[in-house]
Amino acid sequence: MRIGIDAMGGDQAPVQEIAGALACREFLSPDDRIVLVGDESELLANLSEHDGWHDYIEIRHAGQMIGMNETPVEALRSKPDSSVAVLVKMHKDGELDACISAGNTGAYVAAAQMQLRRLPGVHRPGITILTPTYMGLVAICDVGANVNCRPQHLHQYGIMASVYLKAIGDIPSPRVGLLSIGEEDQKGNELVRGARELMKAEENLNFIGNVEGRDLFTGVCDVVVTDGFVGNVVLKLMEGMAEGVLTAILKEVAEAMPDMARLVKQAGGEIVNKYDYNEYGGAPLLGVRGICIICHGASDHRGIKNAVRGAIDLSKRQVNETIVKLLSGSKDS
Amino acid sequence: MRIGIDAMGGDQAPVQEIAGALACREFLSPDDRIVLVGDESELLANLSEHDGWHDYIEIRHAGQMIGMNETPVEALRSKPDSSVAVLVKMHKDGELDACISAGNTGAYVAAAQMQLRRLPGVHRPGITILTPTYMGLVAICDVGANVNCRPQHLHQYGIMASVYLKAIGDIPSPRVGLLSIGEEDQKGNELVRGARELMKAEENLNFIGNVEGRDLFTGVCDVVVTDGFVGNVVLKLMEGMAEGVLTAILKEVAEAMPDMARLVKQAGGEIVNKYDYNEYGGAPLLGVRGICIICHGASDHRGIKNAVRGAIDLSKRQVNETIVKLLSGSKDS
Repeated sequence: MRIGIDAMGGDQAPVQEIAGALACREFLSPDDRIVLVGDESELLANLSEHDGWHDYIEIRHAGQMIGMNETPVEALRSKPDSSVAVLVKMHKDGELDACISAGNTGAYVAAAQMQLRRLPGVHRPGITILTPTYMGLVAICDVGANVNCRPQHLHQYGIMASVYLKAIGDIPSPRVGLLSIGEEDQKGNELVRGARELMKAEENLNFIGNVEGRDLFTGVCDVVVTDGFVGNVVLKLMEGMAEGVLTAILKEVAEAMPDMARLVKQAGGEIVNKYDYNEYGGAPLLGVRGICIICHGASDHRGIKNAVRGAIDLSKRQVNETIVKLLSGSKDS
Repeated sequence: MRIGIDAMGGDQAPVQEIAGALACREFLSPDDRIVLVGDESELLANLSEHDGWHDYIEIRHAGQMIGMNETPVEALRSKPDSSVAVLVKMHKDGELDACISAGNTGAYVAAAQMQLRRLPGVHRPGITILTPTYMGLVAICDVGANVNCRPQHLHQYGIMASVYLKAIGDIPSPRVGLLSIGEEDQKGNELVRGARELMKAEENLNFIGNVEGRDLFTGVCDVVVTDGFVGNVVLKLMEGMAEGVLTAILKEVAEAMPDMARLVKQAGGEIVNKYDYNEYGGAPLLGVRGICIICHGASDHRGIKNAVRGAIDLSKRQVNETIVKLLSGSKDS
């Protein structure tokens, strides 16, 4: 496989992107190649201190970059030679089998939607993220690609995220919940009530019905389906809260046991590692004609490395092919 | 003041409701009365072991009750003599100055909306909840009264929640954020973009712009405005996550330091207390012609007692009067 990485994207680009690419050596097959897309001279300068990278890493020059706070569509228009635009274009042209970016998510998703088009039968692509909870991993789809959803979109998110989790998480029949504000049929807004009817009637879905916010942590389902607005709010809330609760708790414990402050801090560090998104291989934009993995902006080299591994898994386990097959048999598509 | 309590509502009704009412003695004025609404014989049997309750507690019989899992509107129709229906009717008829329930929130809100009507100028009432974060209290409005919002509704939630927080939290000019998925003007769904324009132009609002999920924990704003669907998801998510993270952390710390397990558990207990909703006086349904405080179903006697205190504060600090005044001067109302 040829896997492209937006080397200029993340908060610590290109250092973490390069370190991540180098770390992939341990699991790449002899024919696999990583293509770093970005400023050639900067990338060469960083790579020069390492040996043997030529064997599996290539560089593709891109003279521009899109910052985290730029407006996605405008930035893509004004910067056709940005690393993310070049990356996605290469994937479209068949030069890459998958692409990865930790940069401006909006720009990356917009480029992917515009360039790659959708898999046959897919209404709207959705970002699917695996979140660690103390009851195991939960996949949430969508977390920000599509903020004006229709019921059919949510229905398809359930199918796509199920296929993904089945393939990646080795869960034979993922339990799918629809995020709402109560379990009963009539609960929720119009969007959710419409989606619920479609999902109940869908035979390719192990649909368990509505779930509430708390159910992300109760282990009742493996996939949570929601629109991109709510999903993104939920995602950011969980990040902020994990940090907030952790800070509060460590402070409290350290105050109650001043002698133990160092040990407590160490234990806190272990928890942070366990709940670290860098361990979970990035979030695929499911539904596009290709493999696009989105990494957190603050990803370190492990986040990039695990995203490469995730891209290989998506390809090997034929996630896109399965999605197309299931959607072609779905009544609603 | 005469404050009514749905004595049959909460998970541990009527025991916690009665204990809460009894505990109010410490701050009630000589003329204040608590009216417990529910099964008279059961309430009398419970009260009989206490002395002096006659001085400040009255009982109003209601022969039916609505369970937590009943469908709100149907339940209200089929049970006109339910404790919550009688409670709200008494408030409407001027027999009570405020009412409190820890029962079925949907039924309580529906009864309040149907019976009490709205304050002049209010489009839709909204539930405003104070949530403790490690950066201080944050008020979220709405957390479930109105799941199909228009921009004007969000605009008014900002005004109403500001008035509330200013009065109750002694914050001179609460900073109001609009929950979205990015800071920029064009971010968010149609609802949020519409609300943003109205809120930017509103002079009675210290509007700081869009905030994200993580900002509930960063101390950048005092009030978070959102529609009832997203707000309810957020609320339940925070409850579930606080419990989940706490469990995971206590487990991890206890494992890392087995000798300290008891102390760690104790510290955990202190944190739970600090973040306990029972400390924060319930959530008012702002915008109705009256004072309706919603308590968590699992409220104990402290939750009930603090809700009574909250109802008195709302009345004394003229929250409803101020809301009416501000909305009458607002361009959009």
